[in-house]
Amino acid sequence: MPFELTILGSGSATPTPDRFASSQFLNFANHNILIDCGEGSQIQMIRFGVKSFKVDMIFISHLHPDHFLGLPGFISSLSLKGRTEPLDIYCPVGLKEILDVQFHFGEVHLGYEIRYHSFTESGERKEYEDQYISVFSFPVNHRVPCRGFVFQEKKSIRRINKSINSASKLPNESFPVLRSGRDFIDKTGKIWPFKDYTIPNDVPFCYAYVTDTTYLPLLALKLSELRIHTLYHEATFLDDLKEKAKITCHSTAKEAAEFATQAGVKRLILGHFSARYKDLEPLLREARAIFPETYIAVDGIKLEA
Amino acid sequence: MPFELTILGSGSATPTPDRFASSQFLNFANHNILIDCGEGSQIQMIRFGVKSFKVDMIFISHLHPDHFLGLPGFISSLSLKGRTEPLDIYCPVGLKEILDVQFHFGEVHLGYEIRYHSFTESGERKEYEDQYISVFSFPVNHRVPCRGFVFQEKKSIRRINKSINSASKLPNESFPVLRSGRDFIDKTGKIWPFKDYTIPNDVPFCYAYVTDTTYLPLLALKLSELRIHTLYHEATFLDDLKEKAKITCHSTAKEAAEFATQAGVKRLILGHFSARYKDLEPLLREARAIFPETYIAVDGIKLEA
Repeated sequence: MPFELTILGSGSATPTPDRFASSQFLNFANHNILIDCGEGSQIQMIRFGVKSFKVDMIFISHLHPDHFLGLPGFISSLSLKGRTEPLDIYCPVGLKEILDVQFHFGEVHLGYEIRYHSFTESGERKEYEDQYISVFSFPVNHRVPCRGFVFQEKKSIRRINKSINSASKLPNESFPVLRSGRDFIDKTGKIWPFKDYTIPNDVPFCYAYVTDTTYLPLLALKLSELRIHTLYHEATFLDDLKEKAKITCHSTAKEAAEFATQAGVKRLILGHFSARYKDLEPLLREARAIFPETYIAVDGIKLEA
Repeated sequence: MPFELTILGSGSATPTPDRFASSQFLNFANHNILIDCGEGSQIQMIRFGVKSFKVDMIFISHLHPDHFLGLPGFISSLSLKGRTEPLDIYCPVGLKEILDVQFHFGEVHLGYEIRYHSFTESGERKEYEDQYISVFSFPVNHRVPCRGFVFQEKKSIRRINKSINSASKLPNESFPVLRSGRDFIDKTGKIWPFKDYTIPNDVPFCYAYVTDTTYLPLLALKLSELRIHTLYHEATFLDDLKEKAKITCHSTAKEAAEFATQAGVKRLILGHFSARYKDLEPLLREARAIFPETYIAVDGIKLEA
């Protein structure tokens, strides 16, 4: 499965028991990625059965409390569970200082290294690249420096052809080899030809995460070049609170739908809902009137490609 | 009601969906007090319907992540909800620095003042006193500086006599006046004599909070002078893990029961359970064999005097 997104938190500044603060766990092309980490994210990971121990990259959009307060607890818990692999965190300037002072006074000594990659550029930046994916960050418009992220599958990656009967017998470790276009040889010497088990991947999958921002039509136009499949866009308010959205540097459900239309995505996920909305149906309705393929982020749901 | 304790979190370093990290909300003699504030405490407060907005004092035992990580989110949320009254936080040295750096980078501007009362003494200290209560802190033995707390009702406070039929009609604002031994005059000029509606309070209520410590029999002996009614004592492990408890500076259920016996308390609440225990019955059994009036802290339960 190339893409599985688990919503850990779909709320905004004030959490509710049903909607924790922003956090998503992305299992994508051989990577386990945490995007934002609001308070209580580690509890949500346990609750929703995500493989948090395997996380290899964390992306933090900005330093408002509802987007990173779960991080120190999550980081400490990984250490208590015996992690030794380094952990890469892509984050705003300041996060290292915030964590360092906590770990200093709490005398927390981690059993692994944290490698901070602080956002020092003002424009877009390639954050990461390997044979499977590229990740870009780009500025959005909020009250503090804030960035969105694009997670792109590499064009070279082929897909496992599940319609081949014997594909279910493929060893797990063969997947990355076959998908990169090379034959796999198992322990017994048997050759599994990539051409038999994979199909070309014409449109590489692309996921974009855009939160805590005013509506940015020019950004949507720019992102339209990337052929984004799934877009998560914040929709803190209904459009009748458009002025409040503007003042607080947030978006409405209608604006998120317009952004999705302009960016030419296939699917839109709304999230970061104000705690004032007990019923999310009106937000969904408002967005679907403009962009029918809209869905609501609910804590615990898993989205696949 | 002079005493109502709501358990917000009964877990230890690794939280579980059923057991959040340490936190308690104490409604005691005209005060709303938060004791420790683990990750997710603000969500628990909403879930369990405690009047978090009214909190006037916060006590933090130590700076391990599972005892204060919920604080920045809680403090921010109070500001978003419009709080203007100052908030007193009794805490280890370092908490101010931890919060200041977060609020600096997140550009969080609180609408109220935080007054920090950092623990600078090494011995016991009177933290607070007014006409209703006294609060003391005292050192316990953990891997980082850690303190326990005693919340004592003042001897002068009388109790409302609920067996008087018309007591249910008493105006709310009459309670502190009557309980301090003065007649209350309502808006219509009616006099409510304190002698008719209150009874003397021979044994003032006393609550002690002892967490994250090895077993300290000398402290128990010292606390026995205070006539403690309810004691919360950590019981991270069963006694078969006594050595692990010693190494990690924690206590076992058996040790907590021995402490309660030596301190001569009326009721013992066990908490801070290791995530390894799915079933807490064995911990309860172990303690009750020594101290029968033992109860288990469960997230969401309310204990009254």
